[in-house]
Amino acid sequence: VKVFLGERLIEAAQARIPPEDRGFLLGDGVFETFGVKAGQARDVPAHLERLRAGLSALGFHPALSDADLEAALAETIAANGVETGSARLTLSRGPGPRGLVPPEPSTPTLLITAQPRTGAPPGPAKAAIATVTRRNEHSPLARLKTLNYLDSVLALNEARAKGADEALLLNTAGRLACASAANLYLVISGQAVTPPVVEGVLPGTVRRHLLDGGEATERALFPADAAQASEAFLTSSAGVRAVVAVDGRPVGDGRPGPVFERIAAAFG
Amino acid sequence: VKVFLGERLIEAAQARIPPEDRGFLLGDGVFETFGVKAGQARDVPAHLERLRAGLSALGFHPALSDADLEAALAETIAANGVETGSARLTLSRGPGPRGLVPPEPSTPTLLITAQPRTGAPPGPAKAAIATVTRRNEHSPLARLKTLNYLDSVLALNEARAKGADEALLLNTAGRLACASAANLYLVISGQAVTPPVVEGVLPGTVRRHLLDGGEATERALFPADAAQASEAFLTSSAGVRAVVAVDGRPVGDGRPGPVFERIAAAFG
Repeated sequence: VKVFLGERLIEAAQARIPPEDRGFLLGDGVFETFGVKAGQARDVPAHLERLRAGLSALGFHPALSDADLEAALAETIAANGVETGSARLTLSRGPGPRGLVPPEPSTPTLLITAQPRTGAPPGPAKAAIATVTRRNEHSPLARLKTLNYLDSVLALNEARAKGADEALLLNTAGRLACASAANLYLVISGQAVTPPVVEGVLPGTVRRHLLDGGEATERALFPADAAQASEAFLTSSAGVRAVVAVDGRPVGDGRPGPVFERIAAAFG
Repeated sequence: VKVFLGERLIEAAQARIPPEDRGFLLGDGVFETFGVKAGQARDVPAHLERLRAGLSALGFHPALSDADLEAALAETIAANGVETGSARLTLSRGPGPRGLVPPEPSTPTLLITAQPRTGAPPGPAKAAIATVTRRNEHSPLARLKTLNYLDSVLALNEARAKGADEALLLNTAGRLACASAANLYLVISGQAVTPPVVEGVLPGTVRRHLLDGGEATERALFPADAAQASEAFLTSSAGVRAVVAVDGRPVGDGRPGPVFERIAAAFG
Protein backbone atom coordinates (compact mmCIF):
# COMPACT_ATOMS: atom_id res chain seq x y z
CA VAL A 1 0.00 0.00 0.00
CA LYS A 2 1.33 3.38 -1.02
CA VAL A 3 0.21 6.79 0.15
CA PHE A 4 0.99 10.25 -1.14
CA LEU A 5 2.42 12.28 1.72
CA GLY A 6 3.78 15.78 1.26
CA GLU A 7 5.35 15.69 -2.18
CA ARG A 8 5.63 12.04 -3.10
CA LEU A 9 4.31 8.50 -2.96
CA ILE A 10 5.75 6.40 -0.16
CA GLU A 11 5.00 3.09 1.49
CA ALA A 12 2.14 3.54 3.97
CA ALA A 13 4.19 1.81 6.64
CA GLN A 14 6.78 4.57 6.33
CA ALA A 15 4.34 7.48 6.30
CA ARG A 16 4.71 9.67 9.36
CA ILE A 17 2.42 12.45 10.52
CA PRO A 18 4.45 14.53 12.99
CA PRO A 19 2.91 14.70 16.48
CA GLU A 20 2.77 18.50 16.27
CA ASP A 21 0.52 18.39 13.21
CA ARG A 22 -2.58 20.50 13.87
CA GLY A 23 -4.64 17.96 11.97
CA PHE A 24 -3.93 15.49 14.77
CA LEU A 25 -4.01 18.00 17.65
CA LEU A 26 -7.04 20.14 16.71
CA GLY A 27 -8.73 18.55 13.71
CA ASP A 28 -7.43 21.58 11.82
CA GLY A 29 -7.87 20.56 8.20
CA VAL A 30 -10.19 19.44 5.45
CA PHE A 31 -10.63 16.37 3.30
CA GLU A 32 -12.45 14.98 0.30
CA THR A 33 -13.42 11.41 -0.47
CA PHE A 34 -13.59 10.57 -4.17
CA GLY A 35 -15.39 7.65 -5.71
CA VAL A 36 -13.09 5.70 -8.06
CA LYS A 37 -14.46 3.91 -11.13
CA ALA A 38 -12.44 2.41 -13.96
CA GLY A 39 -9.33 3.60 -12.16
CA GLN A 40 -10.44 7.25 -12.26
CA ALA A 41 -11.48 9.57 -9.47
CA ARG A 42 -14.95 10.95 -10.14
CA ASP A 43 -16.19 14.53 -9.95
CA VAL A 44 -12.71 15.87 -9.30
CA PRO A 45 -13.47 19.55 -10.12
CA ALA A 46 -16.50 19.64 -7.80
CA HIS A 47 -14.53 18.02 -4.97
CA LEU A 48 -11.59 20.38 -5.40
CA GLU A 49 -13.93 23.37 -5.46
CA ARG A 50 -15.38 22.31 -2.11
CA LEU A 51 -11.88 21.63 -0.77
CA ARG A 52 -10.83 25.16 -1.73
CA ALA A 53 -13.92 26.58 -0.02
CA GLY A 54 -12.88 24.78 3.14
CA LEU A 55 -9.31 26.02 2.90
CA SER A 56 -10.56 29.58 2.47
CA ALA A 57 -12.79 29.28 5.52
CA LEU A 58 -9.93 27.89 7.58
CA GLY A 59 -7.48 30.40 6.13
CA PHE A 60 -4.60 28.30 4.86
CA HIS A 61 -3.52 27.28 1.41
CA PRO A 62 -1.06 24.69 0.15
CA ALA A 63 1.44 25.66 -2.52
CA LEU A 64 -0.27 23.24 -4.88
CA SER A 65 -2.56 23.95 -7.79
CA ASP A 66 -5.67 21.95 -8.54
CA ALA A 67 -3.70 20.31 -11.35
CA ASP A 68 -1.01 19.29 -8.84
CA LEU A 69 -3.63 17.82 -6.51
CA GLU A 70 -5.37 16.00 -9.35
CA ALA A 71 -2.06 14.54 -10.55
CA ALA A 72 -1.16 13.35 -7.05
CA LEU A 73 -4.60 11.80 -6.71
CA ALA A 74 -4.29 9.95 -10.02
CA GLU A 75 -0.79 8.79 -9.11
CA THR A 76 -2.00 7.37 -5.78
CA ILE A 77 -4.93 5.56 -7.37
CA ALA A 78 -2.70 4.08 -10.06
CA ALA A 79 0.09 3.07 -7.65
CA ASN A 80 -2.41 1.08 -5.60
CA GLY A 81 -4.06 -0.48 -8.64
CA VAL A 82 -7.50 0.71 -7.56
CA GLU A 83 -10.11 0.15 -10.27
CA THR A 84 -13.29 0.43 -8.21
CA GLY A 85 -13.13 1.97 -4.78
CA SER A 86 -12.35 5.29 -3.21
CA ALA A 87 -9.59 7.78 -2.58
CA ARG A 88 -9.26 10.28 0.22
CA LEU A 89 -7.34 13.55 0.01
CA THR A 90 -6.60 15.17 3.37
CA LEU A 91 -5.03 18.61 3.86
CA SER A 92 -4.22 19.68 7.40
CA ARG A 93 -2.77 23.03 8.39
CA GLY A 94 0.43 21.16 9.26
CA PRO A 95 2.68 21.49 12.31
CA GLY A 96 2.21 24.31 14.77
CA PRO A 97 3.38 25.43 18.19
CA ARG A 98 1.33 24.89 21.34
CA GLY A 99 -2.05 26.62 21.38
CA LEU A 100 -4.71 27.61 18.88
CA VAL A 101 -3.00 30.44 17.02
CA PRO A 102 -1.94 29.11 13.60
CA PRO A 103 1.64 29.59 12.47
CA GLU A 104 2.15 32.11 9.68
CA PRO A 105 2.95 30.89 7.16
CA SER A 106 1.65 27.37 7.66
CA THR A 107 3.17 24.35 5.95
CA PRO A 108 0.11 22.20 5.19
CA THR A 109 0.28 18.41 5.25
CA LEU A 110 -1.09 16.63 2.18
CA LEU A 111 -2.08 12.98 2.55
CA ILE A 112 -3.75 10.93 -0.19
CA THR A 113 -4.83 7.32 0.21
CA ALA A 114 -6.69 5.01 -2.18
CA GLN A 115 -8.55 1.81 -1.39
CA PRO A 116 -10.27 -0.78 -3.58
CA ARG A 117 -13.86 -1.52 -2.67
CA THR A 118 -14.03 -4.65 -0.57
CA GLY A 119 -17.20 -6.71 -0.56
CA ALA A 120 -20.56 -5.82 -2.03
CA PRO A 121 -21.96 -2.27 -1.76
CA PRO A 122 -23.99 -1.82 1.41
CA GLY A 123 -27.64 -2.81 1.13
CA PRO A 124 -30.67 -0.81 2.21
CA ALA A 125 -30.16 1.00 5.51
CA LYS A 126 -32.22 1.05 8.66
CA ALA A 127 -31.67 4.52 10.10
CA ALA A 128 -32.02 5.92 13.59
CA ILE A 129 -32.38 9.62 14.37
CA ALA A 130 -29.49 10.59 16.63
CA THR A 131 -30.43 11.76 20.11
CA VAL A 132 -26.86 12.05 21.44
CA THR A 133 -25.96 15.10 19.35
CA ARG A 134 -27.18 17.58 16.78
CA ARG A 135 -25.62 19.19 13.78
CA ASN A 136 -24.71 22.85 14.28
CA GLU A 137 -26.14 24.87 11.40
CA HIS A 138 -24.71 28.00 13.08
CA SER A 139 -21.17 26.84 12.28
CA PRO A 140 -19.63 27.01 8.81
CA LEU A 141 -18.11 23.61 9.60
CA ALA A 142 -21.53 22.02 8.98
CA ARG A 143 -21.20 23.02 5.33
CA LEU A 144 -17.54 22.03 4.97
CA LYS A 145 -15.80 18.67 5.02
CA THR A 146 -13.35 19.14 7.85
CA LEU A 147 -11.40 16.86 10.14
CA ASN A 148 -13.91 17.65 12.92
CA TYR A 149 -16.04 14.55 12.41
CA LEU A 150 -16.83 13.48 15.95
CA ASP A 151 -20.52 14.44 15.97
CA SER A 152 -21.02 12.05 13.07
CA VAL A 153 -18.99 9.34 14.80
CA LEU A 154 -21.10 9.72 17.96
CA ALA A 155 -24.33 9.63 15.98
CA LEU A 156 -23.31 6.54 14.02
CA ASN A 157 -22.15 4.76 17.17
CA GLU A 158 -25.53 5.46 18.76
CA ALA A 159 -27.39 4.16 15.69
CA ARG A 160 -25.33 0.98 15.58
CA ALA A 161 -25.84 0.40 19.29
CA LYS A 162 -29.59 0.51 18.58
CA GLY A 163 -29.23 -2.07 15.81
CA ALA A 164 -29.54 0.45 12.98
CA ASP A 165 -27.11 0.86 10.08
CA GLU A 166 -27.09 4.62 9.74
CA ALA A 167 -27.72 7.76 11.75
CA LEU A 168 -29.82 10.74 10.73
CA LEU A 169 -28.79 13.99 12.37
CA LEU A 170 -31.13 16.79 13.35
CA ASN A 171 -29.88 20.36 13.37
CA THR A 172 -30.16 22.49 16.51
CA ALA A 173 -33.63 23.63 15.39
CA GLY A 174 -34.80 20.02 15.38
CA ARG A 175 -35.08 19.62 11.63
CA LEU A 176 -33.50 16.83 9.58
CA ALA A 177 -30.05 17.67 8.23
CA CYS A 178 -28.25 14.61 6.88
CA ALA A 179 -26.89 11.15 7.61
CA SER A 180 -23.53 10.55 9.30
CA ALA A 181 -21.63 11.05 6.04
CA ALA A 182 -24.24 11.41 3.32
CA ASN A 183 -27.00 13.71 2.12
CA LEU A 184 -30.58 12.75 2.94
CA TYR A 185 -33.62 12.77 0.65
CA LEU A 186 -37.24 12.00 1.34
CA VAL A 187 -39.63 11.27 -1.51
CA ILE A 188 -42.83 13.19 -0.85
CA SER A 189 -45.65 13.28 -3.41
CA GLY A 190 -43.30 11.59 -5.85
CA GLN A 191 -40.63 14.28 -5.52
CA ALA A 192 -37.23 13.79 -3.89
CA VAL A 193 -36.62 16.63 -1.42
CA THR A 194 -33.46 17.38 0.55
CA PRO A 195 -32.73 20.07 3.15
CA PRO A 196 -30.99 23.25 1.96
CA VAL A 197 -27.39 23.77 3.06
CA VAL A 198 -28.40 26.50 5.53
CA GLU A 199 -29.93 23.70 7.59
CA GLY A 200 -26.40 22.52 8.40
CA VAL A 201 -25.86 20.35 5.36
CA LEU A 202 -22.72 19.51 3.42
CA PRO A 203 -23.18 20.47 -0.24
CA GLY A 204 -22.51 16.99 -1.63
CA THR A 205 -21.30 16.44 -5.16
CA VAL A 206 -24.01 13.90 -6.01
CA ARG A 207 -26.57 16.17 -4.34
CA ARG A 208 -25.47 18.93 -6.72
CA HIS A 209 -26.04 16.66 -9.71
CA LEU A 210 -29.52 15.75 -8.50
CA LEU A 211 -30.49 19.38 -7.89
CA ASP A 212 -29.02 20.57 -11.19
CA GLY A 213 -30.72 17.74 -13.06
CA GLY A 214 -34.12 18.41 -11.52
CA GLU A 215 -34.08 15.02 -9.78
CA ALA A 216 -34.42 16.66 -6.35
CA THR A 217 -35.48 19.97 -4.85
CA GLU A 218 -34.59 21.70 -1.59
CA ARG A 219 -36.98 22.00 1.33
CA ALA A 220 -36.62 22.05 5.10
CA LEU A 221 -37.56 18.64 6.48
CA PHE A 222 -39.01 17.71 9.85
CA PRO A 223 -38.68 14.31 11.51
CA ALA A 224 -42.43 13.82 11.04
CA ASP A 225 -41.93 14.11 7.27
CA ALA A 226 -40.20 10.71 7.31
CA ALA A 227 -43.53 9.12 8.25
CA GLN A 228 -45.19 10.73 5.20
CA ALA A 229 -42.46 9.82 2.74
CA SER A 230 -42.91 7.02 0.23
CA GLU A 231 -39.11 6.57 0.06
CA ALA A 232 -35.92 7.80 1.65
CA PHE A 233 -32.37 7.55 0.38
CA LEU A 234 -28.84 8.85 0.87
CA THR A 235 -26.19 10.03 -1.54
CA SER A 236 -22.45 10.43 -1.10
CA SER A 237 -19.35 9.84 -3.16
CA ALA A 238 -19.72 6.20 -2.04
CA GLY A 239 -22.97 5.98 -3.99
CA VAL A 240 -26.72 5.96 -3.46
CA ARG A 241 -28.28 3.98 -0.60
CA ALA A 242 -31.94 3.34 0.18
CA VAL A 243 -33.23 4.01 3.71
CA VAL A 244 -36.03 1.56 4.39
CA ALA A 245 -36.76 2.34 8.05
CA VAL A 246 -36.38 5.25 10.46
CA ASP A 247 -36.41 4.54 14.18
CA GLY A 248 -37.90 1.13 13.56
CA ARG A 249 -40.79 2.31 11.40
CA PRO A 250 -40.77 1.40 7.71
CA VAL A 251 -40.44 4.18 5.16
CA GLY A 252 -43.21 3.68 2.57
CA ASP A 253 -43.56 -0.05 2.06
CA GLY A 254 -40.20 -0.69 3.72
CA ARG A 255 -38.38 -1.54 0.49
CA PRO A 256 -36.21 0.45 -1.93
CA GLY A 257 -38.58 2.33 -4.23
CA PRO A 258 -38.68 3.49 -7.84
CA VAL A 259 -37.16 6.94 -7.30
CA PHE A 260 -34.20 5.39 -5.49
CA GLU A 261 -33.82 2.76 -8.23
CA ARG A 262 -33.76 5.37 -10.97
CA ILE A 263 -31.26 7.59 -9.18
CA ALA A 264 -29.06 4.67 -8.12
CA ALA A 265 -28.92 3.51 -11.73
CA ALA A 266 -27.76 6.95 -12.83
CA PHE A 267 -25.44 7.90 -9.96
CA GLY A 268 -24.68 4.71 -8.01
CA VAL B 1 12.67 17.51 22.96
CA LYS B 2 11.19 14.21 24.01
CA VAL B 3 7.59 13.07 23.71
CA PHE B 4 5.79 10.11 25.20
CA LEU B 5 4.24 8.12 22.36
CA GLY B 6 2.51 4.81 22.92
CA GLU B 7 4.48 3.20 25.69
CA ARG B 8 7.70 5.17 25.97
CA LEU B 9 9.58 8.42 25.70
CA ILE B 10 11.20 9.05 22.34
CA GLU B 11 12.80 11.96 20.53
CA ALA B 12 10.08 14.20 19.09
CA ALA B 13 11.79 14.10 15.71
CA GLN B 14 11.29 10.33 15.63
CA ALA B 15 7.67 10.34 16.80
CA ARG B 16 5.31 9.11 14.11
CA ILE B 17 1.53 9.25 14.06
CA PRO B 18 0.41 6.75 11.42
CA PRO B 19 -1.63 8.31 8.59
CA GLU B 20 -4.54 5.97 9.36
CA ASP B 21 -4.88 7.32 12.90
CA ARG B 22 -8.47 8.44 13.48
CA GLY B 23 -7.17 11.35 15.53
CA PHE B 24 -5.71 12.77 12.33
CA LEU B 25 -8.49 11.64 9.97
CA LEU B 26 -11.59 12.47 12.03
CA GLY B 27 -10.49 14.33 15.15
CA ASP B 28 -11.50 11.15 16.99
CA GLY B 29 -9.92 11.61 20.39
CA VAL B 30 -9.61 13.71 23.52
CA PHE B 31 -6.89 15.69 25.24
CA GLU B 32 -6.02 17.54 28.42
CA THR B 33 -3.63 20.43 28.93
CA PHE B 34 -2.01 20.57 32.36
CA GLY B 35 -0.38 23.57 33.94
CA VAL B 36 3.11 22.72 35.20
CA LYS B 37 4.58 24.47 38.25
CA ALA B 38 7.73 23.50 40.12
CA GLY B 39 8.10 20.62 37.70
CA GLN B 40 4.70 19.14 38.62
CA ALA B 41 1.51 18.86 36.61
CA ARG B 42 -1.34 20.53 38.47
CA ASP B 43 -4.85 19.23 39.13
CA VAL B 44 -4.04 15.83 37.70
CA PRO B 45 -7.02 13.95 39.23
CA ALA B 46 -9.52 16.53 37.91
CA HIS B 47 -7.99 16.46 34.44
CA LEU B 48 -7.95 12.66 34.32
CA GLU B 49 -11.56 12.54 35.49
CA ARG B 50 -12.57 14.78 32.59
CA LEU B 51 -10.42 12.74 30.21
CA ARG B 52 -12.23 9.57 31.32
CA ALA B 53 -15.59 11.26 30.80
CA GLY B 54 -14.53 12.06 27.24
CA LEU B 55 -13.35 8.52 26.60
CA SER B 56 -16.66 7.14 27.88
CA ALA B 57 -18.61 9.46 25.59
CA LEU B 58 -16.49 8.45 22.61
CA GLY B 59 -16.55 4.79 23.62
CA PHE B 60 -12.92 3.75 23.69
CA HIS B 61 -10.51 3.11 26.50
CA PRO B 62 -6.75 2.71 26.60
CA ALA B 63 -5.26 -0.18 28.54
CA LEU B 64 -3.72 2.31 30.94
CA SER B 65 -4.74 3.19 34.46
CA ASP B 66 -4.80 6.73 35.78
CA ALA B 67 -1.60 5.87 37.65
CA ASP B 68 0.01 4.82 34.34
CA LEU B 69 -1.05 8.07 32.69
CA GLU B 70 0.14 10.15 35.63
CA ALA B 71 3.51 8.39 35.62
CA ALA B 72 3.92 8.94 31.86
CA LEU B 73 3.01 12.60 32.32
CA ALA B 74 5.56 13.07 35.10
CA GLU B 75 8.19 11.26 33.06
CA THR B 76 7.61 13.54 30.06
CA ILE B 77 7.76 16.70 32.16
CA ALA B 78 10.97 15.56 33.85
CA ALA B 79 12.64 14.41 30.61
CA ASN B 80 12.12 17.87 29.11
CA GLY B 81 13.23 19.68 32.26
CA VAL B 82 10.01 21.70 32.40
CA GLU B 83 9.72 23.65 35.65
CA THR B 84 7.06 26.19 34.66
CA GLY B 85 4.98 25.58 31.58
CA SER B 86 2.43 23.10 30.34
CA ALA B 87 1.96 19.51 29.28
CA ARG B 88 -0.57 18.06 26.90
CA LEU B 89 -1.89 14.50 26.99
CA THR B 90 -3.68 13.39 23.82
CA LEU B 91 -5.52 10.09 23.40
CA SER B 92 -6.89 9.29 19.97
CA ARG B 93 -8.89 6.20 19.08
CA GLY B 94 -5.88 5.06 17.05
CA PRO B 95 -5.73 3.58 13.57
CA GLY B 96 -8.87 2.51 11.76
CA PRO B 97 -10.04 1.39 8.34
CA ARG B 98 -11.73 3.73 5.87
CA GLY B 99 -15.01 5.22 7.08
CA LEU B 100 -16.56 6.26 10.35
CA VAL B 101 -17.18 2.91 12.02
CA PRO B 102 -14.57 2.47 14.75
CA PRO B 103 -12.53 -0.71 14.83
CA GLU B 104 -13.35 -3.10 17.68
CA PRO B 105 -11.21 -3.28 19.68
CA SER B 106 -9.43 -0.01 19.09
CA THR B 107 -5.74 0.51 19.84
CA PRO B 108 -5.66 4.09 21.15
CA THR B 109 -2.70 6.36 20.51
CA LEU B 110 -1.24 8.10 23.57
CA LEU B 111 0.86 11.22 22.99
CA ILE B 112 2.24 13.41 25.78
CA THR B 113 4.25 16.57 25.20
CA ALA B 114 5.64 19.11 27.68
CA GLN B 115 6.77 22.68 27.02
CA PRO B 116 8.38 25.32 29.22
CA ARG B 117 6.61 28.65 29.31
CA THR B 118 8.29 31.06 26.93
CA GLY B 119 8.01 34.79 27.56
CA ALA B 120 5.80 36.57 30.06
CA PRO B 121 2.22 35.40 30.70
CA PRO B 122 -0.23 37.11 28.35
CA GLY B 123 -1.51 40.47 29.56
CA PRO B 124 -5.12 41.68 29.70
CA ALA B 125 -7.17 40.61 26.70
CA LYS B 126 -9.31 42.58 24.33
CA ALA B 127 -12.06 40.18 23.29
CA ALA B 128 -14.34 40.03 20.28
CA ILE B 129 -17.59 38.07 20.18
CA ALA B 130 -17.33 35.57 17.34
CA THR B 131 -19.77 36.03 14.49
CA VAL B 132 -18.31 33.33 12.23
CA THR B 133 -19.50 30.42 14.36
CA ARG B 134 -21.36 29.41 17.50
CA ARG B 135 -20.79 26.78 20.10
CA ASN B 136 -23.19 23.85 19.88
CA GLU B 137 -24.71 23.25 23.31
CA HIS B 138 -26.76 20.41 21.75
CA SER B 139 -23.59 18.34 21.30
CA PRO B 140 -21.82 16.57 24.16
CA LEU B 141 -18.60 17.68 22.50
CA ALA B 142 -19.17 21.20 23.86
CA ARG B 143 -18.67 19.79 27.35
CA LEU B 144 -15.69 17.58 26.48
CA LYS B 145 -12.14 18.41 25.46
CA THR B 146 -11.92 16.66 22.12
CA LEU B 147 -9.71 16.93 19.06
CA ASN B 148 -12.58 18.74 17.28
CA TYR B 149 -11.31 22.24 17.96
CA LEU B 150 -11.98 24.02 14.69
CA ASP B 151 -14.86 26.22 15.87
CA SER B 152 -12.49 27.71 18.44
CA VAL B 153 -9.76 28.13 15.83
CA LEU B 154 -12.19 29.93 13.50
CA ALA B 155 -13.43 32.18 16.32
CA LEU B 156 -9.91 33.08 17.43
CA ASN B 157 -8.79 33.76 13.86
CA GLU B 158 -11.76 36.11 13.43
CA ALA B 159 -10.95 37.92 16.69
CA ARG B 160 -7.30 38.36 15.76
CA ALA B 161 -8.22 39.63 12.32
CA LYS B 162 -10.28 42.32 14.10
CA GLY B 163 -7.31 43.30 16.25
CA ALA B 164 -8.57 41.53 19.38
CA ASP B 165 -6.62 39.02 21.47
CA GLU B 166 -9.36 36.57 22.31
CA ALA B 167 -12.71 35.33 21.04
CA LEU B 168 -15.90 34.91 23.03
CA LEU B 169 -18.25 32.29 21.64
CA LEU B 170 -22.03 32.43 21.78
CA ASN B 171 -24.02 29.22 21.90
CA THR B 172 -26.72 28.54 19.31
CA ALA B 173 -29.27 30.29 21.55
CA GLY B 174 -27.18 33.48 21.37
CA ARG B 175 -25.96 33.41 24.97
CA LEU B 176 -22.33 33.69 26.05
CA ALA B 177 -20.57 30.33 26.44
CA CYS B 178 -16.81 30.71 26.76
CA ALA B 179 -13.60 31.97 25.17
CA SER B 180 -11.69 30.03 22.50
CA ALA B 181 -10.02 27.80 25.11
CA ALA B 182 -11.01 29.19 28.49
CA ASN B 183 -14.01 29.66 30.76
CA LEU B 184 -15.59 33.10 30.89
CA TYR B 185 -16.71 35.09 33.96
CA LEU B 186 -18.41 38.44 34.26
CA VAL B 187 -18.39 40.31 37.54
CA ILE B 188 -21.90 41.63 38.13
CA SER B 189 -22.86 43.34 41.38
CA GLY B 190 -19.51 42.30 42.77
CA GLN B 191 -20.11 38.60 42.06
CA ALA B 192 -18.23 36.55 39.44
CA VAL B 193 -20.76 34.64 37.35
CA THR B 194 -20.07 32.03 34.65
CA PRO B 195 -22.44 30.14 32.34
CA PRO B 196 -23.53 26.64 33.43
CA VAL B 197 -22.15 23.72 31.41
CA VAL B 198 -25.55 23.11 29.75
CA GLU B 199 -24.90 26.34 27.85
CA GLY B 200 -22.19 24.49 25.89
CA VAL B 201 -19.33 25.05 28.29
CA LEU B 202 -16.31 22.91 29.09
CA PRO B 203 -16.23 22.14 32.84
CA GLY B 204 -12.80 23.63 33.45
CA THR B 205 -10.65 22.57 36.36
CA VAL B 206 -10.02 26.14 37.60
CA ARG B 207 -13.74 26.87 37.07
CA ARG B 208 -14.50 23.95 39.40
CA HIS B 209 -12.22 25.41 42.08
CA LEU B 210 -13.90 28.81 41.82
CA LEU B 211 -17.40 27.33 42.06
CA ASP B 212 -16.48 25.00 44.92
CA GLY B 213 -14.79 27.83 46.79
CA GLY B 214 -17.71 30.20 46.40
CA GLU B 215 -15.62 32.56 44.26
CA ALA B 216 -18.06 32.25 41.36
CA THR B 217 -21.64 31.18 40.72
CA GLU B 218 -23.40 29.85 37.63
CA ARG B 219 -25.86 31.88 35.60
CA ALA B 220 -26.78 32.13 31.94
CA LEU B 221 -25.13 35.20 30.42
CA PHE B 222 -26.25 37.36 27.52
CA PRO B 223 -23.97 39.50 25.37
CA ALA B 224 -25.62 42.60 26.84
CA ASP B 225 -24.46 41.50 30.30
CA ALA B 226 -20.89 42.35 29.29
CA ALA B 227 -21.88 46.03 29.15
CA GLN B 228 -23.18 45.82 32.74
CA ALA B 229 -20.18 43.96 34.14
CA SER B 230 -17.57 45.74 36.27
CA GLU B 231 -14.99 43.12 35.24
CA ALA B 232 -14.54 40.13 32.98
CA PHE B 233 -11.91 37.41 33.11
CA LEU B 234 -11.01 33.97 31.78
CA THR B 235 -9.66 30.85 33.45
CA SER B 236 -7.93 27.83 32.01
CA SER B 237 -5.09 25.55 32.98
CA ALA B 238 -2.86 28.29 31.51
CA GLY B 239 -4.00 30.65 34.26
CA VAL B 240 -6.32 33.58 34.85
CA ARG B 241 -6.55 36.43 32.34
CA ALA B 242 -8.41 39.72 32.58
CA VAL B 243 -10.71 40.78 29.72
CA VAL B 244 -10.66 44.57 29.54
CA ALA B 245 -12.74 45.14 26.40
CA VAL B 246 -15.45 43.34 24.43
CA ASP B 247 -16.01 44.32 20.80
CA GLY B 248 -14.07 47.55 21.36
CA ARG B 249 -16.01 48.68 24.41
CA PRO B 250 -14.24 48.73 27.76
CA VAL B 251 -15.43 46.35 30.48
CA GLY B 252 -15.90 48.41 33.64
CA ASP B 253 -13.11 50.97 33.72
CA GLY B 254 -11.16 49.05 31.07
CA ARG B 255 -8.52 47.76 33.46
CA PRO B 256 -8.05 44.52 35.39
CA GLY B 257 -10.20 44.79 38.52
CA PRO B 258 -10.07 43.64 42.12
CA VAL B 259 -11.98 40.36 41.66
CA PHE B 260 -9.61 39.36 38.88
CA GLU B 261 -6.59 40.35 40.97
CA ARG B 262 -7.75 38.28 43.92
CA ILE B 263 -8.49 35.20 41.81
CA ALA B 264 -5.31 35.53 39.75
CA ALA B 265 -3.29 35.66 42.95
CA ALA B 266 -4.92 32.45 44.15
CA PHE B 267 -5.12 30.48 40.89
CA GLY B 268 -2.82 32.17 38.36
